[in-house]
Amino acid sequence: MKKIRAGIMGGAGYTGGELLRLLLRHPHVEIAFVHSTSNGGKPVYQVHSDLLGETDLHFSSTYTNEVDVLFLCAGHGAARKFMESYTGKALVIDLSQDFRLKGEHVAGDRAFTYGLPELQREAIKEATAIANPGCFATCIQLALLPLAERKQLTAPVHISGITGSTGAGQSLSETSHFSWRNNNVSAYKVLTHQHLAEIRQSLEALQQTEIPPIHFVPYRGNFSRGILTTCYLQTELTLEAAQALYRDYYAGHPFVHLASENPDLKQVVNTNKCVLYLEKQGDQLVIISLLDNLLKGAAGQAVQNMNISFGFEETAGLNLKASAF
Amino acid sequence: MKKIRAGIMGGAGYTGGELLRLLLRHPHVEIAFVHSTSNGGKPVYQVHSDLLGETDLHFSSTYTNEVDVLFLCAGHGAARKFMESYTGKALVIDLSQDFRLKGEHVAGDRAFTYGLPELQREAIKEATAIANPGCFATCIQLALLPLAERKQLTAPVHISGITGSTGAGQSLSETSHFSWRNNNVSAYKVLTHQHLAEIRQSLEALQQTEIPPIHFVPYRGNFSRGILTTCYLQTELTLEAAQALYRDYYAGHPFVHLASENPDLKQVVNTNKCVLYLEKQGDQLVIISLLDNLLKGAAGQAVQNMNISFGFEETAGLNLKASAF
Amino acid sequence: MKKIRAGIMGGAGYTGGELLRLLLRHPHVEIAFVHSTSNGGKPVYQVHSDLLGETDLHFSSTYTNEVDVLFLCAGHGAARKFMESYTGKALVIDLSQDFRLKGEHVAGDRAFTYGLPELQREAIKEATAIANPGCFATCIQLALLPLAERKQLTAPVHISGITGSTGAGQSLSETSHFSWRNNNVSAYKVLTHQHLAEIRQSLEALQQTEIPPIHFVPYRGNFSRGILTTCYLQTELTLEAAQALYRDYYAGHPFVHLASENPDLKQVVNTNKCVLYLEKQGDQLVIISLLDNLLKGAAGQAVQNMNISFGFEETAGLNLKASAF
Amino acid sequence: MKKIRAGIMGGAGYTGGELLRLLLRHPHVEIAFVHSTSNGGKPVYQVHSDLLGETDLHFSSTYTNEVDVLFLCAGHGAARKFMESYTGKALVIDLSQDFRLKGEHVAGDRAFTYGLPELQREAIKEATAIANPGCFATCIQLALLPLAERKQLTAPVHISGITGSTGAGQSLSETSHFSWRNNNVSAYKVLTHQHLAEIRQSLEALQQTEIPPIHFVPYRGNFSRGILTTCYLQTELTLEAAQALYRDYYAGHPFVHLASENPDLKQVVNTNKCVLYLEKQGDQLVIISLLDNLLKGAAGQAVQNMNISFGFEETAGLNLKASAF
Repeated sequence: MKKIRAGIMGGAGYTGGELLRLLLRHPHVEIAFVHSTSNGGKPVYQVHSDLLGETDLHFSSTYTNEVDVLFLCAGHGAARKFMESYTGKALVIDLSQDFRLKGEHVAGDRAFTYGLPELQREAIKEATAIANPGCFATCIQLALLPLAERKQLTAPVHISGITGSTGAGQSLSETSHFSWRNNNVSAYKVLTHQHLAEIRQSLEALQQTEIPPIHFVPYRGNFSRGILTTCYLQTELTLEAAQALYRDYYAGHPFVHLASENPDLKQVVNTNKCVLYLEKQGDQLVIISLLDNLLKGAAGQAVQNMNISFGFEETAGLNLKASAF
Repeated sequence: MKKIRAGIMGGAGYTGGELLRLLLRHPHVEIAFVHSTSNGGKPVYQVHSDLLGETDLHFSSTYTNEVDVLFLCAGHGAARKFMESYTGKALVIDLSQDFRLKGEHVAGDRAFTYGLPELQREAIKEATAIANPGCFATCIQLALLPLAERKQLTAPVHISGITGSTGAGQSLSETSHFSWRNNNVSAYKVLTHQHLAEIRQSLEALQQTEIPPIHFVPYRGNFSRGILTTCYLQTELTLEAAQALYRDYYAGHPFVHLASENPDLKQVVNTNKCVLYLEKQGDQLVIISLLDNLLKGAAGQAVQNMNISFGFEETAGLNLKASAF
Repeated sequence: MKKIRAGIMGGAGYTGGELLRLLLRHPHVEIAFVHSTSNGGKPVYQVHSDLLGETDLHFSSTYTNEVDVLFLCAGHGAARKFMESYTGKALVIDLSQDFRLKGEHVAGDRAFTYGLPELQREAIKEATAIANPGCFATCIQLALLPLAERKQLTAPVHISGITGSTGAGQSLSETSHFSWRNNNVSAYKVLTHQHLAEIRQSLEALQQTEIPPIHFVPYRGNFSRGILTTCYLQTELTLEAAQALYRDYYAGHPFVHLASENPDLKQVVNTNKCVLYLEKQGDQLVIISLLDNLLKGAAGQAVQNMNISFGFEETAGLNLKASAF
Repeated sequence: MKKIRAGIMGGAGYTGGELLRLLLRHPHVEIAFVHSTSNGGKPVYQVHSDLLGETDLHFSSTYTNEVDVLFLCAGHGAARKFMESYTGKALVIDLSQDFRLKGEHVAGDRAFTYGLPELQREAIKEATAIANPGCFATCIQLALLPLAERKQLTAPVHISGITGSTGAGQSLSETSHFSWRNNNVSAYKVLTHQHLAEIRQSLEALQQTEIPPIHFVPYRGNFSRGILTTCYLQTELTLEAAQALYRDYYAGHPFVHLASENPDLKQVVNTNKCVLYLEKQGDQLVIISLLDNLLKGAAGQAVQNMNISFGFEETAGLNLKASAF
């Protein structure tokens, strides 16, 4: 099979680096360039030091339109700006939040398709531009999609979740300082997290009704990778019925797995998996959901979208060994 | 002032050790004995190695009734068993869950008083036996007491919280193994945590009505000390009204502080403080609450109860330097 | 290419689990059985929960001789015991310390070859039994082999190193308790670490002289995976000469890389790489060496040895994405 | 006893904050001002958030000479600059490295005394300016002073040590980023650490001879507080003789303790203690030494120096509860 050519804009950040790690091992991809404004000319392993010995690729400060797929990892705001002058024909996969919402999803003559494969696989196959979902947004949507599809989101949904530090990117800030974050925890954007908009948008599209309130309390965890969320809502569904419904929904989706025991975050760290776990307590259905924010929550999902778009096996390049510890 | 004599049953565990650290520095207390079945005869610093150079105290395998206050740190179940044969006259302060609930609070001719000073200070002054509250229970009650007092708990309360590993004690288990817990997070006892009973009991006694459902999602954090919880509920109270109400309620209580900015756990680690922070988002009041599970959530609160009972300054021996990092 | 059949004895421990993660993805291997005395009949993902969704393999409490390669992960002492009654013809790769030393390397009619590919690749090709090196032993030997080959180990060698918690296996102990190990560090087996014997044995065989004293101070780190060691010794070699010597030595070895900047542990975590870095300070040559104790220090090296023995590409199944964070 | 008045220059950093935590609880000190160029006018708890509820003190952007003791926490270089224009008469205690070395210890008409109480107690009593030692420097000197006093430093000394992140201060940098440092370890300034100069200076002054080479490998640890070092050297001293010698040397020093079992870092975290532990392996004497870099390695030692200078009990305000976990 002829390899496709991929370009990466903004390759020096966390998601850009993770994408590089994946694409360098992908059986059907050749990396055409990794663009970085501030690192042009440097070997990529000088920035992503774990790549030492794996590639002689250098960052470039220019880019070419001669690619089949272009990943935008330059961050929120920068993606929209880039698209204003972009004239290439490549499939564009944007990892920022710029094009996720209806009303914001158009750039020139392109309309971005929301790139959650477990919701939009068919649309992704036809897309010319894909807006990759947010990390918390992916984790929470995967926890709720099967309910929305059966119109079971009929009561308020209560969510808490905790994210690793890489979710905040590599910029230096008080809350990313080791001496602050180590052995610490804090809540932030309580009930106001920006991912709620894309979550509601997907759920309402799927359930085809308005959705009751969704309340979300996010925490900053003192670990590097991963997101774990817990959702609960009142429902008449029994546990068995709910489990059957989830199994049905995710039957053909290779990265979502239903656990039979209460899971922990490290089951998915450094993989593209999302693990779900259901409980029923009284009249409340509880859904625990976990994924790696840099993989299924970002770069892994971007590769999954690319695989779907180009007709590769959906898991190509994504059969990753968990770090486990 | 003449020093009182204190005895500790079960002094080799985490709460026993923390109590020792406090009592060794307490201006009005002399330690009469530290009992440990399995460590009798050993210097206490062989078990609590940070006490090297601070005391020559040894564990004893017997105990005496010649004390003014007796702390029970032997764990759940063991406290009730101990009280069956106890004939001493000391003030008993139990750190287990054995005597916290109405219907379970009597041992022989003694009735245990629930030892939450911010709710029960007057009753504690008269008590002959005190049931020290649970760690999560303290954190959540302090977040909700001011609302209960004004009969404002009129909608379901949604709570998530995360606890350090010391909350699970020193016994070895899969979830206390470093290789498992490091860089990990997991939910447990979702909507079924045992502290909900004592929380409801206090809130209903204070509000003098039945309380709507309280939903609580606890997480195991990958840090050692501390608890952070977030509560929210629908209310018509404005933020300003709520803040005023909390300031009033805690006016005379030296360990509870209202923060004006979103706090983080390490503000309270290694102190006896509880920090509260309020937000209003739409019609939801959010209360973030934090404390050190071994101090305000256990041994510190036990000393606070002792101080109240013996008429010492409530903060005596509890003006602790935060570890801060 | 026809797949070889592999068996694992002691598959429920840390190295057994890591080996499973590797072999399940290996292009030329089919897993015949995973033996576990205490977990026979259970799905392997009940023990290694990150394998959920990857395999339906179950632990078995019996084993068969119908395999091409047999990995012994049952631990120190158990390997020798197993070999006493083993009658199969498979290549045996032992991950314990039982057969590493001359004088201890024979079991029945088999002699174990010390399985450090960067020292013994040709011998490994011919071996019928391989003693996989220790984790610290691998890290330190890779730091010193090029010097030994050129007879440059002529002054005492001073080494310090720090290891993650998985190096101590999954048994529960005080030093593996999260509440103890988190945010902590300690030295152990100072100047007496058992790996010094296999290190000396290799270096003396290569240098063909007696080696001056080697002093080693190991630390327990508060992280899960990885080993970093620093060696220094007096030498007349210039930095440039030393670097050339190391480049020559490792020219044909795919997993050892020379860094041009001072490295950090996470460059190699979750990979089979060893990264080396050289400095010269005054008359002292400094060699920093890092690897993942469960991979290049255990299961990864075992697979590398298998690859060499069966004529597979040395990197087959070992091109792993670093976790990086 | 009348309280002395203390001023702090550079009170917004880590050592300034730690000093504040100590002085606010000190029985003989009243804080006159806490100077911060960038935070003038803010309540100190807005920067050191753990001080919420403990003080209404505000940072000031000016300072007064009407103090008895002045602590300089403004950092390396800034201290010397400040002294150029300082006209006050207060005892000056500088926590930077600006005045520690002979040849650099004079500022105007003042000569700074090196402030290591276990070496210089008598000189500190007479000093008008004190240069507080470095954190690694304190840890290593306390490990070696008893040997120097008896002229036993006759062979090269080999040292490795690991420090928490607070040692690097609160400025943001790649190596203080949580996503980088978490679960990581790295060596730095190998054999070239700047504290070697003050270490040699003290040891040579005490031993009254030149000292053999001292080799030091420092590591960055993934924890917040604390330093652990291991020194070893060839000696004819028996273990018992060495232990006797250390006990003698530290007999009158309240913060240095000799452990009888191999210690771990958390024994001293959040205290002003230094714990030492001796082993003899072959002809090598091993000395393990541990302290909290912000306390005995910085602010705690500064207070200890103040106590000595003003004739307070040496432990006043320094009887701190270990965080222990």
